[in-house]
Amino acid sequence: MPDPDIQFSIPTGQPMVIVSCSFPVSAHRVFAAMTDASLIPDWWGPSVLTNTVEVMDVRPGGKWRIIQREPNREEYAFHGYYHLVDPDRRLVYTFEYEGEPGHVILESITLETVDGGTLLTDQSVFQSQADRDGMVAADMESGARESMQRLYGILTREH
Amino acid sequence: MPDPDIQFSIPTGQPMVIVSCSFPVSAHRVFAAMTDASLIPDWWGPSVLTNTVEVMDVRPGGKWRIIQREPNREEYAFHGYYHLVDPDRRLVYTFEYEGEPGHVILESITLETVDGGTLLTDQSVFQSQADRDGMVAADMESGARESMQRLYGILTREH
Repeated sequence: MPDPDIQFSIPTGQPMVIVSCSFPVSAHRVFAAMTDASLIPDWWGPSVLTNTVEVMDVRPGGKWRIIQREPNREEYAFHGYYHLVDPDRRLVYTFEYEGEPGHVILESITLETVDGGTLLTDQSVFQSQADRDGMVAADMESGARESMQRLYGILTREH
Repeated sequence: MPDPDIQFSIPTGQPMVIVSCSFPVSAHRVFAAMTDASLIPDWWGPSVLTNTVEVMDVRPGGKWRIIQREPNREEYAFHGYYHLVDPDRRLVYTFEYEGEPGHVILESITLETVDGGTLLTDQSVFQSQADRDGMVAADMESGARESMQRLYGILTREH
């Protein structure tokens, strides 16, 4: 698998995390892959976990819910609702880990056309610094890096 | 009209605004009033503006959209989607002023039972400090204070 340039930044004093990655394909292809429920099991989160997409209704007000299972069958579920769906450009949605109910994150994924491809920037805005620090302590970085790496693999695989 | 104690705070270095107000009635009554579309014209925003609720579907994934009109007929529209609806306790939803498309705010309203009534705390989390500062510059404070004052009036009016 190729080795993409993934940046994971934790702005000091801001309840945010920003992840970015460049892909050598069009924004249309990145957006299509990210919003394809059938591909989620192949890239969303760490590969050691199995993903099941219960629902992924990519339109404003639509719900998404994904269940991740450990090899030992332990489950982690996540859900949210889409606010903005701007094809090939931007996706804004809410995100809640059901193990921490009521702690909601506002996610914004922006795609920009750059030389030779597409720059994806994923901003997570938390309701507090403590929520942000909790997610970082739960090793959000390695999960995010592995997701981007796997998505990159899907998008650069020979057809 | 009575004079409630309204706090409007702008945390330094955080992309947030926090508004709080105490009401001498139960959390059930505050929640019921806030989620009653027929009351929105009576308290939401400055009284000089006329509110029309196009939709207010208070359930997770439900949409809300409110149009405010100036006396000169100029219009401002706002919309969002509910993420969390926990009756009498909490409401989390997205908020977008359609005059600034793509700038989304995550709103969280929490009701706590306190001596003699209910403390409402409304946290707005912005996607950037610039977005927060822009809303503050657009006199978010007087709009928020007037909303709380008017909601207080509705809740303390003799029946």
